Amino acid sequence: MITLVAGIDIGGTNQTVAIATPEGDVLTRSRAQRPPGGTAEDLVRSISALLEEALAEAAQATPGTQLTGIGIGFGGPVDHAQGTILTSHHVAGWSGFPLRQTLTERFGVPVVLDNDANAGALGEARFGVGHDFSDFLYVNIGAGIGGGIIVRNRLLRGAHGLAGEIGHMTVVPGGAPCDCGKRGCLEAYASGRSLGRRARAATSADPTAGAAILALAGGRSDAVDGHHLMQAATAGDRLALTLVRQTAGYLGLALGNAANLLGPAAIILGGGVAGAGDVLLTPLREHLAWHLMPGMPAPAILQAALGYDAGVMGAIALALELG
Amino acid sequence: MITLVAGIDIGGTNQTVAIATPEGDVLTRSRAQRPPGGTAEDLVRSISALLEEALAEAAQATPGTQLTGIGIGFGGPVDHAQGTILTSHHVAGWSGFPLRQTLTERFGVPVVLDNDANAGALGEARFGVGHDFSDFLYVNIGAGIGGGIIVRNRLLRGAHGLAGEIGHMTVVPGGAPCDCGKRGCLEAYASGRSLGRRARAATSADPTAGAAILALAGGRSDAVDGHHLMQAATAGDRLALTLVRQTAGYLGLALGNAANLLGPAAIILGGGVAGAGDVLLTPLREHLAWHLMPGMPAPAILQAALGYDAGVMGAIALALELG
Repeated sequence: MITLVAGIDIGGTNQTVAIATPEGDVLTRSRAQRPPGGTAEDLVRSISALLEEALAEAAQATPGTQLTGIGIGFGGPVDHAQGTILTSHHVAGWSGFPLRQTLTERFGVPVVLDNDANAGALGEARFGVGHDFSDFLYVNIGAGIGGGIIVRNRLLRGAHGLAGEIGHMTVVPGGAPCDCGKRGCLEAYASGRSLGRRARAATSADPTAGAAILALAGGRSDAVDGHHLMQAATAGDRLALTLVRQTAGYLGLALGNAANLLGPAAIILGGGVAGAGDVLLTPLREHLAWHLMPGMPAPAILQAALGYDAGVMGAIALALELG
Repeated sequence: MITLVAGIDIGGTNQTVAIATPEGDVLTRSRAQRPPGGTAEDLVRSISALLEEALAEAAQATPGTQLTGIGIGFGGPVDHAQGTILTSHHVAGWSGFPLRQTLTERFGVPVVLDNDANAGALGEARFGVGHDFSDFLYVNIGAGIGGGIIVRNRLLRGAHGLAGEIGHMTVVPGGAPCDCGKRGCLEAYASGRSLGRRARAATSADPTAGAAILALAGGRSDAVDGHHLMQAATAGDRLALTLVRQTAGYLGLALGNAANLLGPAAIILGGGVAGAGDVLLTPLREHLAWHLMPGMPAPAILQAALGYDAGVMGAIALALELG
């Protein structure tokens, strides 16, 4: 008999469901947008329907298959041990929702739920550039910043399943307010959202210096976002490069602090901001070196391999953790 | 047959050797001062002689015993995997010294070598207040600051055996020079040595405000050290309390950052500075809470149980890790 696992990636706007072999070969994959204004129950119905279709498709292509587990990567804080969503500001009824129990009852297989950064770390460990390292730190720098820590080939979850929150490391004591409610968090200085904020402030303060960034945003300072900034920096724009180098400074501080604590062989960076490549990573490596304890070997700074597939491959890796 | 393990604690000025049962009951313990001007070979000869005496004593008290392993906690950076000392500025010939191999050959048993903070963490895990927690952070705040991280009841050593270096977390970007060569490290702001430096600066700048601290140091500002500062703060002196609260701020930042990454159930504080108790720990708990990600349960802040015995009990715990 051929066993299969399912991976479910629940993001802010999309859900992706995939069926894979224990080797990680994806047999089917489907994606749905979140129905606007839908509740948690609506979303679970939609995900369950996607999964049932995918399973039927897989069974037709390869008779005699059996689902052995489901992994779910969720774009927000979860209680891994309880299998519940902790909080969500996007979907009504998500807070406290018993997602693991609901899907376990519906599909009759073990289900594991974790946040998308932990899923991303496991995905890179099993299917990406993390495969070569037993100890690494994964950091997703997208709209927000999440992290997952792999120690001796396993996820470090901590006492409450909440470890890895490098996005909320204080990098500027008493600094800018963060969406989490604290001040001076890395996420408030180096996430895609904060890059956009800083780029909007800089271009509206000095439209001449900001001309190249503004041109990418149709000339409107209030339309500037992090993507425009990274694009302008890659093209060599001076203001954009200054802002990106500042960002590299904050990231270098946080990753250096984390490396002194964890001693990782590598730091793997995923998400849209990290996708900008050398324009960010070259100054980041310099800043990181300044914060490493002398004698601590510099971890390799690598771009994540899974890119667009990070979410669903991470969810599959979670499901395989069950086996 | 009764098996025994040996623990060796090698500090800046003293070496302590103890023989214990696998349950951690110490049968004999002896201590020697480092011979002034001695080399690494002299020190190893002295340690070996102490250990042979201790073994002979144990064998006389309880015939039929057998040594099964030796743990060594070293007050400085070591290469755990290779079993060598990385660097030492105190003893000629320590840098690169193959301490594990030398003692393995001499005593014919497995030897494990680690730094004193990692040994301290294992000691608290096995014999101290860490016994109740599978995931905790141990921080020794003495002359310097060292750390050891316990994850799922095991030491997190990282890819190079150098993990746990919370003392070199940057808490003030571009800040005061640290003995390690970096700037703005926690150790440069919250260690016993840095407390002494700040207390000397404050009392010489304002001898009236510093009168209580100065009195404890015989009236001489250049004789003030961290102990005088903590003593004056405990007695309610205003300047001393201000300095101790600043210290709590730096520690709260570093421990909060570490807690967001590691999600520990507890943070266990050892060493002389932590020994001051509530005068430091009460403001520290407040500052820590400000840096914790909302939703992250506050780790228990506890004083280490082993105190004076931390070094040698940690070394015994290292030896028991072998079994």
